[in-house]
Amino acid sequence: MNITLEQAETVIAAAKRKSIEINTKMVISVLDAGTNLVALARMDDALLGSIDVSIKKAKTSALLQMDTATLTPLVKPEGPFFNLEHSNGGLITFAGGVVIKNSAGIVIGAVGVSGGSLEDDHIVAEAGAKAVL
Amino acid sequence: MNITLEQAETVIAAAKRKSIEINTKMVISVLDAGTNLVALARMDDALLGSIDVSIKKAKTSALLQMDTATLTPLVKPEGPFFNLEHSNGGLITFAGGVVIKNSAGIVIGAVGVSGGSLEDDHIVAEAGAKAVL
Amino acid sequence: MNITLEQAETVIAAAKRKSIEINTKMVISVLDAGTNLVALARMDDALLGSIDVSIKKAKTSALLQMDTATLTPLVKPEGPFFNLEHSNGGLITFAGGVVIKNSAGIVIGAVGVSGGSLEDDHIVAEAGAKAVL
Amino acid sequence: MNITLEQAETVIAAAKRKSIEINTKMVISVLDAGTNLVALARMDDALLGSIDVSIKKAKTSALLQMDTATLTPLVKPEGPFFNLEHSNGGLITFAGGVVIKNSAGIVIGAVGVSGGSLEDDHIVAEAGAKAVL
Repeated sequence: MNITLEQAETVIAAAKRKSIEINTKMVISVLDAGTNLVALARMDDALLGSIDVSIKKAKTSALLQMDTATLTPLVKPEGPFFNLEHSNGGLITFAGGVVIKNSAGIVIGAVGVSGGSLEDDHIVAEAGAKAVL
Repeated sequence: MNITLEQAETVIAAAKRKSIEINTKMVISVLDAGTNLVALARMDDALLGSIDVSIKKAKTSALLQMDTATLTPLVKPEGPFFNLEHSNGGLITFAGGVVIKNSAGIVIGAVGVSGGSLEDDHIVAEAGAKAVL
Repeated sequence: MNITLEQAETVIAAAKRKSIEINTKMVISVLDAGTNLVALARMDDALLGSIDVSIKKAKTSALLQMDTATLTPLVKPEGPFFNLEHSNGGLITFAGGVVIKNSAGIVIGAVGVSGGSLEDDHIVAEAGAKAVL
Repeated sequence: MNITLEQAETVIAAAKRKSIEINTKMVISVLDAGTNLVALARMDDALLGSIDVSIKKAKTSALLQMDTATLTPLVKPEGPFFNLEHSNGGLITFAGGVVIKNSAGIVIGAVGVSGGSLEDDHIVAEAGAKAVL
């Protein structure tokens, strides 16, 4: 069960609306449950560095079926998974990657958002993920 | 002068319409003139291998300001740029990458399409590129 | 709005003068706002490891529109962007990458300097960046 | 015995003069005999794809102590070194890479030029290499 392009576009549209509402410039990436890219949108004047960061946040969430905000304490020097970022061609473990579930609670993909503060990134990603329910 | 997200979304919408019209499943990538990703859409059931191919076709067109179909004969064993694909982190030099110009004729980005025959890929990419004029 | 070669050469000349003044051997890299290389100079006897470090410092500054010295505390284990370096093909987040702005305050590129202490690298990069104003 | 930055800057200045004379926009890269970058200049409006191609041409010449134009027939399907481009992280084997020798005939580096026709690239590279004699 994987996210469709129509669902991914719904995620991106909702994330963009939230991003405009809180006055940020984001890159929004949507991956399927197999970690393959489905859709991406870079808002005008978003940081170029956010393209790869948003993809890697979504990849990290899809690979581990976990929001990256939940993962953050686990990869600190005192955490159990310190430096997990070296695996899988590079992970990003701070907030902004959110798992996308369907109405049956099954993971169908993940969304990654980068460009604002960690709080902003997470809020925008969550607004996107919730739009498919 | 770089493509905006609104223009990139126009490119993708036009490419999707053409793709449906000719009954193909495509991945469509839009890069700016500096070769940075602006937008991407993978149609349902498009080949997973087409994600990277579509990005690399667009990258090749943006890097060389040339449609990849024009480049194809130049990189053959008897052509002047044989094995150019080994540069720039990997190029794709068959049809499906098309330069995007604005109405003043200035290159503002490139679109890459992968998923069908080379003829189909090129037709869909061109339909996308023309939509911003 | 991107840096010209003439401006990049001005950056490098000013950085070299400052480097000689403080008795260091530097590699100096200048990238445009799209993170593409415009000019590079490796001073005689500069460390070979500084070539890639100087390029990655400039890339980091251009990608995030921020001096790398400003970024340093943010990527520490207790900082919000811990292990950001795993994105974008490898970033360098210690001092020596400086954003280049034109007189209107618009980012037109970035300069990266490596070869001395972090203080030296930053001073030399800043001397370069200021030379285009 | 390696090329100095002053010599590399002489190579680039001569190559730029020749490039302007024949009305082309080039990227010019100078590597030392150990294949490490010494200096690079991208002329305004040169193709972005030429940055990596010019570096790889110079790298190929320095690695093999041979102009890339001499190498071209050797890597064709019927040649002895077919697909040599797969080695060394990617080589470029068409014209535009030229060995730099000192007045004693010793190889001290290589220059790579990309942006025009193969004839233009070679002429500009040779003008650069000869300037240190």
